[in-house]
Amino acid sequence: MTYRIISIIGGSDSNHDVLELAEQTGAEIAKRGVTLACGGLGGVMEAACRGAKKFNGLTIGILPTEMKEHANEFVDIVIPTGLGYARNFLVAKAGDAVIALDGSAGTLSEIAIAWFSDRPIVALTKSGGWAQKLAGTQIDGRRNDVVHSAETPREAVQMVFDALNWK
Amino acid sequence: MTYRIISIIGGSDSNHDVLELAEQTGAEIAKRGVTLACGGLGGVMEAACRGAKKFNGLTIGILPTEMKEHANEFVDIVIPTGLGYARNFLVAKAGDAVIALDGSAGTLSEIAIAWFSDRPIVALTKSGGWAQKLAGTQIDGRRNDVVHSAETPREAVQMVFDALNWK
Amino acid sequence: MTYRIISIIGGSDSNHDVLELAEQTGAEIAKRGVTLACGGLGGVMEAACRGAKKFNGLTIGILPTEMKEHANEFVDIVIPTGLGYARNFLVAKAGDAVIALDGSAGTLSEIAIAWFSDRPIVALTKSGGWAQKLAGTQIDGRRNDVVHSAETPREAVQMVFDALNWK
Amino acid sequence: MTYRIISIIGGSDSNHDVLELAEQTGAEIAKRGVTLACGGLGGVMEAACRGAKKFNGLTIGILPTEMKEHANEFVDIVIPTGLGYARNFLVAKAGDAVIALDGSAGTLSEIAIAWFSDRPIVALTKSGGWAQKLAGTQIDGRRNDVVHSAETPREAVQMVFDALNWK
Repeated sequence: MTYRIISIIGGSDSNHDVLELAEQTGAEIAKRGVTLACGGLGGVMEAACRGAKKFNGLTIGILPTEMKEHANEFVDIVIPTGLGYARNFLVAKAGDAVIALDGSAGTLSEIAIAWFSDRPIVALTKSGGWAQKLAGTQIDGRRNDVVHSAETPREAVQMVFDALNWK
Repeated sequence: MTYRIISIIGGSDSNHDVLELAEQTGAEIAKRGVTLACGGLGGVMEAACRGAKKFNGLTIGILPTEMKEHANEFVDIVIPTGLGYARNFLVAKAGDAVIALDGSAGTLSEIAIAWFSDRPIVALTKSGGWAQKLAGTQIDGRRNDVVHSAETPREAVQMVFDALNWK
Repeated sequence: MTYRIISIIGGSDSNHDVLELAEQTGAEIAKRGVTLACGGLGGVMEAACRGAKKFNGLTIGILPTEMKEHANEFVDIVIPTGLGYARNFLVAKAGDAVIALDGSAGTLSEIAIAWFSDRPIVALTKSGGWAQKLAGTQIDGRRNDVVHSAETPREAVQMVFDALNWK
Repeated sequence: MTYRIISIIGGSDSNHDVLELAEQTGAEIAKRGVTLACGGLGGVMEAACRGAKKFNGLTIGILPTEMKEHANEFVDIVIPTGLGYARNFLVAKAGDAVIALDGSAGTLSEIAIAWFSDRPIVALTKSGGWAQKLAGTQIDGRRNDVVHSAETPREAVQMVFDALNWK
C-alpha cells in the first residue's frame, strides 16, 4: 500500500491567523498518519510542515526551483523540479486530496488542477483568499461535485477521510 | 521582433453559440496580424483556429499528447508536448495576452496561470463558464488588475491591443 | 496539413566553424520550405535561426525561461516555457526530425529524447561534441535504427526528407 | 535536514542478472539510511524498490502517468506527474546522486540530465546498456568530471557517499 498523502495549498504570504490554521492542519494530517505534500516554500507551506513535524509526520516539498536548499526547514523529502510554477500540477496531483487555505492566483491554479484531476478539495473557509471564494462552488461534470467547506483543520481532514473512504 | 501572439482558451465541448464567438475571435486576431495560440484540440480551440485560417492567420496548437495527429485540422504549428494538462501552462504563457471563452476547470487553471504570469486576460462575458464567472474579478497584487470583460470578439481583441500598447 | 518542422539541437557556446555549419543548416531548412524549431537561445540555436531568416524561413524558439525577451533576435515564435531544461523535451518533440550539431549534456538529453520519441536523428559529424560521438550509433529496438551521419548541412536536411518520405 | 536521496535509473525490461543487481543496490541504499527515488514502474525500478523495502527503506516513485495505481507495489510515496517521460527530469533531479543500471534511451536521457544538473553519476558497469557505455566518460566542463564506474552495488553506494562527502 502506498502512503496516504494530503496536499496543502495556499499562499506564501498569508497573515498570522492563516499560518496558525495551516500549522494546525499539518498537525492534524500527521496525527492521522497521513503524509503531507506541499510546494515546499514559505508561508502556508512552511507552517503546515512545521505542524506536521511536531507530530512526527512525513513531509514532502515539491519546489519550483532546482535547489533543494530552497525548501523550508520542515520538509523531509525535497523534489526540486526546476519546472517553475508548472510544479503546481505536481503538488495538486501528489495528494489523494487537497486542502486549501487562503491563496491568490497560484492557489487558484492548484484548485483548478485538483478539480480536473478528480481530487477531493476542502477549503478552510475562514482563511480567506481563493479558498474562501471557491468554498461551496459547484464543480461541473466531475465526480467530486463541490469544493467542500470546513470550519476547522480537524473537520477539513475528516472531510478528506470521508470523501476517500479512509478509515 | 518576435510575432505577436494571443492565446485563446476555452472549453472543448462548448455549445454552438460559443463556438461561433470563438471562430469570430480567431478571425479578428488574424485580421489584426496576430498569431493565434491554443491547446490545439477541438471545441473552442478548433473554432478559433478555423476563424483565423479564414483570414490567412498563423495558428499554433500546444497539445497535451505527443501525437501531432491529435491537433485539429486548422493548426499550422503543432507543439506535441506529452505533458498532459500541464501543457495549460504553456498555452497561457505562449500568448502575450489571453482571451477566455466559456470553459470549466481546465480553462480556470489557464486563467489562473495567465494571471500570475502577468498576461492581460480578457473574458468574453456572453460565453458563460469560468470566463463569465471571473469577468471583472479584481486581481490581487498584480500589474494587470482585473479580468477585462468584452462583449464582442472585436472588442476583446481591441482590449488586448490597448492593454499591451500595440498599434 | 500542419507545417513541417525540423528541430536543430546543439551547444550554446560552440566555436566559429560549428556556428557556420549551424547557419548553413538553418538556411537549408528554410530553402526547403520547412519550419525550424530550436531552444531559442544563443550559439547553435541563434546561428541556425539567422540562417533560416536569410531565406525567409519561419523560426520557433522554445525557451527554458518565462521571458520572451530571452529569445535570440532571429526567433519569430517564442514559446516561453518556464520549465527550465525540461524544455529540452519540447524541443526534441516539436520537430518531425532532429539535426544535432556539437553539444554537451543538454544536447545529449535531446538526442536521447528524440530517440525514444521515434524522431529520426541526423548528426553533423564534423561538428564534434555528442553529435559526433553518437553518429552511427545503433538505436536499440526503435523504428529509427541509427543516428544518421551527415557530412554537410544539405546532406543532413536531405536525410531528414528521406527518413520521413517528404517530397 | 532533508532526507538523503539516491535515484536509481535503468531499464524497465532488463534481464534477471540486472534485476538482481538492482535489488541489491536498493538494499544497500536502504541499509545506509538513504531514501530511494526512481521512476516507479517495473524492471530495474521495481527490483530496486523491492530491495530497499527488505531493509525497511523509504521509496519514492515518480510516475509518467497520473495514476497512482501504476506504481510498483514497493513504492511508498507516489508522485503521479502526468508529464509523460518529461518526468525523467524529476527522477534525475530528485536524487542527490544517481546510480545507473543497464538502460536504453530513457536511461540515457536521465544520465544526461543528472549530468547537467551536477548530480554525481555512478554506473554499474556489469549491467550493460547505456550505464556501461558511458561508464568512465569524461564530463565536459562540469563539477563532476566523470561517470564513475562501480563493480558492485555496495561500491556504487559508497562512491555516492564519497562524492557527496556523506558520513
